[in-house]
Amino acid sequence: MNTAKATAEAEIRAQVDSWLQAVLAMDLDRIISHYAPDILAFDAVSQLQFKGVEAYCQHWQACLAMCRPGTMIFELHDVHVTAGDDVAFATALTRCGGTGENGEEKTGWMRMTAGYRQTHGQWKVVHEHFSAPFDMETLKVLDVTP
Amino acid sequence: MNTAKATAEAEIRAQVDSWLQAVLAMDLDRIISHYAPDILAFDAVSQLQFKGVEAYCQHWQACLAMCRPGTMIFELHDVHVTAGDDVAFATALTRCGGTGENGEEKTGWMRMTAGYRQTHGQWKVVHEHFSAPFDMETLKVLDVTP
Repeated sequence: MNTAKATAEAEIRAQVDSWLQAVLAMDLDRIISHYAPDILAFDAVSQLQFKGVEAYCQHWQACLAMCRPGTMIFELHDVHVTAGDDVAFATALTRCGGTGENGEEKTGWMRMTAGYRQTHGQWKVVHEHFSAPFDMETLKVLDVTP
Repeated sequence: MNTAKATAEAEIRAQVDSWLQAVLAMDLDRIISHYAPDILAFDAVSQLQFKGVEAYCQHWQACLAMCRPGTMIFELHDVHVTAGDDVAFATALTRCGGTGENGEEKTGWMRMTAGYRQTHGQWKVVHEHFSAPFDMETLKVLDVTP
């Protein structure tokens, strides 16, 4: 791997980590600061797609409203980055959910793809895709572990 | 957009189209020829992930075995490409399903992300992500249209 590629990969890993810290802090502004204005998001729930940062911000707000601070579980595993000079994407498995009032963890495994573009020296997420696989017979989300 | 970017974008669009034609022809070898050996696939059904072209090939084979030739519906809509010099990704909405024996179409809308890397002058898919959004209450796949 050449130096430029190694640098780009390190920058993307830093972006992914910075975004993750913002999610764990449930800090909407900081989460959104990672996104490009024209982001196209395919989220795991609610709608087929969210076009533009404003629509996606509203969706994030609704999702965060369902979480109790301090009880959210959101982990990234197996983060893999493919980085070019100004386009990159990252993949990861996510374990997310929360700790119930009885202290019991309720989580599920999902998949994440994040697409990045560098403009004026800044990497921004222009595409995000979260999902859970489903069972073809029941059309229900599969409860699977890696 | 500079010339190199425009060329890369056109090349990725040609790859996406070539892959789509292979899927419509239900030609497993031609489908697989678009994938890198180390592809990481997040498919809509069955498993959390498929690591490597061999595992993904077996999954494709099982999926194709469920389709009747000539009745498969697989359309790509809103294809959007973000291309760099040697890394790129494409997003699309897919309408897929089939025509039943009574002639009735049974289809659903899903989302696709495909990540590409160019090696030795050849673009290959190193990551594919297909999914349908689900309802948070029922955990069932949502029947949604764009």
